[in-house]
Amino acid sequence: MRASFDAQPLMRTLGAVLTAVEPGVVRIELPFSAALTQQHGYVHAGAITSIVDSACGYAAYSLMPAGAEVLTVEFKVNLLNPAQGERFVAVGRVIKPGRTLTVCQGEVTALAGNEHRTVALMQTTMMQIGAWNHE
Amino acid sequence: MRASFDAQPLMRTLGAVLTAVEPGVVRIELPFSAALTQQHGYVHAGAITSIVDSACGYAAYSLMPAGAEVLTVEFKVNLLNPAQGERFVAVGRVIKPGRTLTVCQGEVTALAGNEHRTVALMQTTMMQIGAWNHE
Amino acid sequence: MRASFDAQPLMRTLGAVLTAVEPGVVRIELPFSAALTQQHGYVHAGAITSIVDSACGYAAYSLMPAGAEVLTVEFKVNLLNPAQGERFVAVGRVIKPGRTLTVCQGEVTALAGNEHRTVALMQTTMMQIGAWNHE
Amino acid sequence: MRASFDAQPLMRTLGAVLTAVEPGVVRIELPFSAALTQQHGYVHAGAITSIVDSACGYAAYSLMPAGAEVLTVEFKVNLLNPAQGERFVAVGRVIKPGRTLTVCQGEVTALAGNEHRTVALMQTTMMQIGAWNHE
Repeated sequence: MRASFDAQPLMRTLGAVLTAVEPGVVRIELPFSAALTQQHGYVHAGAITSIVDSACGYAAYSLMPAGAEVLTVEFKVNLLNPAQGERFVAVGRVIKPGRTLTVCQGEVTALAGNEHRTVALMQTTMMQIGAWNHE
Repeated sequence: MRASFDAQPLMRTLGAVLTAVEPGVVRIELPFSAALTQQHGYVHAGAITSIVDSACGYAAYSLMPAGAEVLTVEFKVNLLNPAQGERFVAVGRVIKPGRTLTVCQGEVTALAGNEHRTVALMQTTMMQIGAWNHE
Repeated sequence: MRASFDAQPLMRTLGAVLTAVEPGVVRIELPFSAALTQQHGYVHAGAITSIVDSACGYAAYSLMPAGAEVLTVEFKVNLLNPAQGERFVAVGRVIKPGRTLTVCQGEVTALAGNEHRTVALMQTTMMQIGAWNHE
Repeated sequence: MRASFDAQPLMRTLGAVLTAVEPGVVRIELPFSAALTQQHGYVHAGAITSIVDSACGYAAYSLMPAGAEVLTVEFKVNLLNPAQGERFVAVGRVIKPGRTLTVCQGEVTALAGNEHRTVALMQTTMMQIGAWNHE
């Protein structure tokens, strides 16, 4: 999984790091960078979504058989607070694994000093590739 | 609006360009870059989401009174095809403007030579700031 | 399809009628009834969702091979206006058919006299059964 | 709140009962009825959505000031398992209360004898009325 993560150029471009993997739960961290902000100086919802989508995707992947690949079918994100802080921790968690589809929930927390605040919630469907037949 | 867009560092980081603005409709284009891909070589869903979220946000903003600001409340994205192509065109469109909340739909199309393919659909709620009272 | 629709007890319980079917597009109508309302006298979002979910499901089903069945994987609904009117017309439309997953958009319009107003937008993923392996 | 619930005709039409209210958490139960099913004999996703939407709405309402009213802005539902069982328990929970918008998560569990199974997950945005300015 770390090899796959390291092979994700967007995660490198954003500066995101895979910090914890257990079966069905994955954590990705993103340090604040001005390069990731929107017009109000908060981290852009797209960057926040990128890390929590990857966290959920790897959480699903962690329960799939060897040789499988994972793709995102769809996700829904609520933005609860402006994404300001020193770093952002995305946790993706499998709620319902399946042979074809896996449903996950994700959460992104902003950390600054001793304070933390939830900035985003995700509910998403992941698909095992090979089973991927959108084509 | 172009000033606000130019003030979005994430759009610069991704290489995205605002290419059309009319009342309630905004188009943003993103050239393919290997720096934006995931482990299969497609552009990461997070980068695709970033441009269509911004397109919807600016579409909502284009109908708001002077001095207003816009924030994303939530979005839902379906990924229809792998994001492969030379460039990606996101169009955001206001479906229902409102004093506080504006509902938009967005679409991202991948272009390669003469071919094009829809890669993502978004349905989203935007909020006029000042009216923002999540706190 | 009409046989399948007629076999949906909830549609009968709500009073909904299948009024148009073409490949990839289905229309279901629901007359106003006080039995379907919430505390403000508008039709409850759950009843509105029921008809547009069925319209999208049958739209997906209309493009599936004989013998297939369809189940809803997930949907997202934005409620744009209070559901008041004499009747409600849900249209479901396939955006991206697939062997396993089909993505649809749906819309519900309230009609009263000569006026009409969009009350709900849906973006949804449908799955061909047999391929259903959530178990 | 019970008065408001009792004033929701759709809840009566479906046979749903408000069974627990605490600040920010509401539970609604629905006994199985053939009148609520779809073509495979499972309870229709629209009926399941109705109870979890109401549970989330009342959970939001339970934290609002006296005199406020609540309307659903949008929701996203994943259907995890076929809705079969003797009764269905929807729990709605406030994740982030706000002056205008409140974000909730909901879950529906099917019960049959000693077994239970999650059938649906909801992520939703509720709005305090008066603040409702979609018009």
